[in-house]
Amino acid sequence: MRSPAQNAQLALLLEVSGTPKPGNVDRRHEYDDLRFEHFMAGAVGSTRGLLLAQQGAAVGRAFERGVVGMAEQKGGNTQFGALLLLVPLVRAASVDPETALASDTVEEIVRATTVEDACDFYRAFEHVDVGVGDPPSELDALDVRRGARAESVLRERGLTLFDVMELSTDVDGVAREWTEAFPRSFRAADWIEADDGPVADRAADAYLRLLAAEPDTFIVKRHDRETATEVVERAQAALDGTIAPEHLAAELVQQGINPGTTADITAAALFLALERGVSV
Amino acid sequence: MRSPAQNAQLALLLEVSGTPKPGNVDRRHEYDDLRFEHFMAGAVGSTRGLLLAQQGAAVGRAFERGVVGMAEQKGGNTQFGALLLLVPLVRAASVDPETALASDTVEEIVRATTVEDACDFYRAFEHVDVGVGDPPSELDALDVRRGARAESVLRERGLTLFDVMELSTDVDGVAREWTEAFPRSFRAADWIEADDGPVADRAADAYLRLLAAEPDTFIVKRHDRETATEVVERAQAALDGTIAPEHLAAELVQQGINPGTTADITAAALFLALERGVSV
Repeated sequence: MRSPAQNAQLALLLEVSGTPKPGNVDRRHEYDDLRFEHFMAGAVGSTRGLLLAQQGAAVGRAFERGVVGMAEQKGGNTQFGALLLLVPLVRAASVDPETALASDTVEEIVRATTVEDACDFYRAFEHVDVGVGDPPSELDALDVRRGARAESVLRERGLTLFDVMELSTDVDGVAREWTEAFPRSFRAADWIEADDGPVADRAADAYLRLLAAEPDTFIVKRHDRETATEVVERAQAALDGTIAPEHLAAELVQQGINPGTTADITAAALFLALERGVSV
Repeated sequence: MRSPAQNAQLALLLEVSGTPKPGNVDRRHEYDDLRFEHFMAGAVGSTRGLLLAQQGAAVGRAFERGVVGMAEQKGGNTQFGALLLLVPLVRAASVDPETALASDTVEEIVRATTVEDACDFYRAFEHVDVGVGDPPSELDALDVRRGARAESVLRERGLTLFDVMELSTDVDGVAREWTEAFPRSFRAADWIEADDGPVADRAADAYLRLLAAEPDTFIVKRHDRETATEVVERAQAALDGTIAPEHLAAELVQQGINPGTTADITAAALFLALERGVSV
């Protein structure tokens, strides 16, 4: 039987295998500088961090080690957001296999994070270039791009990793999963579980449903809210059958629009589905 | 830095990512009952066996454990032959990073295998349905399909795993790698190293060169020597540019011709290239 860390690794691999996942790298779509094979290497490199999470290490530490390994390829940021979701989920799955995947177990874990976890989280940004927007000016001192230099501010203000996530919850879909007990991850896991056929195909379907449900925050950051809202409408059209998902995929890749947060949540959903016994 | 076990896992993932690899599953080609995602799960499942090899466990034991994990997906045999090549290579890479990947280190390791290793090898056949041909009648008692029931014969005759490989060297390209110190794996690793561009693409090129160089023994077993020889000619035509590799891929998939041994050797070559520092 696969361990939680192995299921997390498989979730990363299946996420990028599912196709089409409009706008994201998948096994039929890639960018010149961000290729399918970078995601393979990123998933292999994440192992150490995922194992630490499984062994009960602190969330921040496990995440930071995961990112170090993930970054050992030339594509840059492949699975930063996905790991931020997977690490507490792997911790939850290893606590007690019976109740582990109830959302309140995960909620307890993220709410119990410490200032130390927050410092490790900031440190992770030093290993890889993550696309983030400018914070509001009053949060300048907490700009994640400051990396380890933000440490003194975090300690001074006593901010835990959960607190840091709360500060971004309005602008970052991954942070919102943290603060709201992973609602979209669990919902998409239900879809994957209820669906049939190849698991990677189910993941691609779940991705499209997530994309049609609300604006992807990574698109909002990189482009603007209007672009993200347009993508929601296009994704709904793809779900309705008005346009082919493959057509939408070509369109978004061409425009360089990359719904990264939606892919991250898809990976989290795949992990939950695998832990519940969905089999490949 | 990735460990040898991690590089082996990445080699398995890159092998199936490279496309087109005519006749084999790759990220653009799959069969209904043997899909891309089965290879993802197979690679994740192989971890335990690859780690054992890295820690210096016996080759047979590490292989058998790798196969158990690999088989935990619904596609059946995905990477049996590849693991049979990778396990001694991972052992070699962990012995002494300096000299590890000289072919004589690997040769020492396979020549030092024991009767116990042979028994574990036979046991591995109980976990997954591997396509093998009928042995010559004098070797009936050693038919691998007898699994653990062959154990008494192996012990009686004092056959090591290397001896077993020698018995198949004429009919099995993986066994031949074992008995001849992995010449094709090392040669293809040189090609991958000398090539440029995405590593998965280089692997696909190396695969085609291997395929054009000599008949794939898995095709000989499943079909016949004539079919295997035709594939050599078609692969050479693809190399010469007379036919598109993509066309050959469609042709072989349609005919259900699967050069499995060539894929196994490609995975071994990828591992060697990664260990030598080729980076993704």
